[in-house]
Amino acid sequence: MEPYLNLVNGQPAETLPLADRGLLYGDGVFRTLRVQAGRALWWAEQYAKLADDCARLSISCPAQALFEADLTALPREDGVVRLTVTRGVGLRGYALPEKVSVTRIVQRSPLPPGLDRADVDFLHWCNIRLAIQPALAGVKHLNRLEHVIARSEWTSFEHGEGLLLDMDERVISGISSNLFMVRGQSLLTPRLDRCGVAGVASARLMARAPRLGMEVIEGDFFMADLAEAEAILFSNSVRGLRWASMHGMRPEPLSFQRLHACLWGD
Amino acid sequence: MEPYLNLVNGQPAETLPLADRGLLYGDGVFRTLRVQAGRALWWAEQYAKLADDCARLSISCPAQALFEADLTALPREDGVVRLTVTRGVGLRGYALPEKVSVTRIVQRSPLPPGLDRADVDFLHWCNIRLAIQPALAGVKHLNRLEHVIARSEWTSFEHGEGLLLDMDERVISGISSNLFMVRGQSLLTPRLDRCGVAGVASARLMARAPRLGMEVIEGDFFMADLAEAEAILFSNSVRGLRWASMHGMRPEPLSFQRLHACLWGD
Repeated sequence: MEPYLNLVNGQPAETLPLADRGLLYGDGVFRTLRVQAGRALWWAEQYAKLADDCARLSISCPAQALFEADLTALPREDGVVRLTVTRGVGLRGYALPEKVSVTRIVQRSPLPPGLDRADVDFLHWCNIRLAIQPALAGVKHLNRLEHVIARSEWTSFEHGEGLLLDMDERVISGISSNLFMVRGQSLLTPRLDRCGVAGVASARLMARAPRLGMEVIEGDFFMADLAEAEAILFSNSVRGLRWASMHGMRPEPLSFQRLHACLWGD
Repeated sequence: MEPYLNLVNGQPAETLPLADRGLLYGDGVFRTLRVQAGRALWWAEQYAKLADDCARLSISCPAQALFEADLTALPREDGVVRLTVTRGVGLRGYALPEKVSVTRIVQRSPLPPGLDRADVDFLHWCNIRLAIQPALAGVKHLNRLEHVIARSEWTSFEHGEGLLLDMDERVISGISSNLFMVRGQSLLTPRLDRCGVAGVASARLMARAPRLGMEVIEGDFFMADLAEAEAILFSNSVRGLRWASMHGMRPEPLSFQRLHACLWGD
C-alpha cells in the first residue's frame, strides 16, 4: 500500500473545507520540519513549539500521539513535513465558534535543493518592515503575508536569503530563518517579542551554545551590529545552520563546525 | 436544479486543495457583500475594491464577468456572499510560484441576525492593538488574526461591536466596520494608511456625505475625540450604517436618516 502524502485529521486528504478558519482568516499555526529515515527531527521540541503557538492563540493543540500516528503513515524517505493546526470550520464572522473542532493537517514534500551548501551567498535587504505586534510575535501562525511580500521582492537565488528589519529598523531575522551574529565568544540574536518567528533550530542553538563556552545575548540589534559581526549565521529546521558568505565574510571554520555539531547533536 | 451554495473557480465545490496559498500563508484577499433579490449590492464598488486589494498584493484579479457568472449561479434569496481570491496552489515556501493560477472562491451564507436594528448597544474596547503595517493597510486580506483575537476578547452580544485602536492609541475602526464621528457638519473618520480595512460602505459614505453639506475629514483620532463626538457611527457592507447607543448617545435622528439614505441610495 502506498503511504499517504497528506493527512487531514488522520485521514488521507488533498483538500480542506472552504469554511475552515485557516483559510477564512489564517486562524491557525504551523511547523515545518525535516524527516530523516522515517524520524521527525527534533520532534519533542517541534511538538512543544506547536503546542505553545496553539496556546498563544487559545487553540487546543491535538495530542502529540495523534501527530506521531500521522507521521508513521507517511513515506519513510527523507523529506519535509508541514504540520498545521487551524481553529477548524467556523461560521461566517470573526467570532470563535461555540464548539471548536480543530483541524490537524500533515503535508509532506521532498527535500528542497541546496541542502549540501552551508552558506548563504546572497542577502537581499528586504524593503518591507515587519510590523510590531507583541500579541503574535514569535508565533509561527498562518498570517504570513509580510513574509510572502518580502520573498517576492527578489528573484530566486538558490543559496540566498532575505534580511528582515522591523518598523523601528531593528534587524529581526531571515525570511525563513533566525539570525545570529558571532562576536568573540558571544552569539547575538534579535529578541522576538515584538515581531518575528521563534524557530526550533534557533531555540536549540541558544540552549546549546553555552556548552561551547559561548554566551547567547538576545537584544535589539541594528544594521551597524551586523556590520561589526565577525560572522552572520542563519538557522532553520530544514537547512540547519548556514553562514553568510557575501563580501568575503566567513566564520572561523572550527567555530562554525562546532556550532553546527552542537545544533545537530543529541 | 438546486442552486449551488459555494463555487471554486466557477465550479460547485465545498473544499480547497491543501496546497492553496490562501491556507498556507493567508495569501489572498476577500470581500463580504450583501445579495438582495438576486443582486449583489454595491457591486461595481465591491469588485473595484477587490481588484484594488488584489493589485496591492500583486495578485491578478479574476475578471468581473467571472464573478458575475458565479453570482447568477447562487440562490436568489437574500443573503451574504463572501468572495475570496487567493494566489492559488503553490509549492512549499514563501516564494511566489513561477506560474500563478489564482483561486476564485464564492461562498454564500444566510443574512446574519439583528439586521432590523440600526444601533450598536455595546462597545468593547479591545485590548489588542492593531500593528502598523503600511504595506497591508486598508487591504481586506486573509491575515485576520488581529481581528480574530479582538473578537475573542468579549462574549457575543448581538448588537455589540469591538473598538480597535492601533499601537499608537489612535482609534481605527470597529472589528467588522468602519467608524465615523459626527461633529457639527463634519464627519470624522480615521485614516487607514497604516492599518485597518477600508470598507466599501465607508467609501460610499465618504463620497456621498458632501451631498448633505457634510465635510468628511480623514485624520488621526484618539479616545478624546470619540468622547467629544456628538454621535459615533459604524458602517459595514452587510449591516449598512449603525449608531452607537451606549451611555444615552444618539445622533440627531434626522441627520442619521439622511446619512443612512445617502449610503443606500443609488
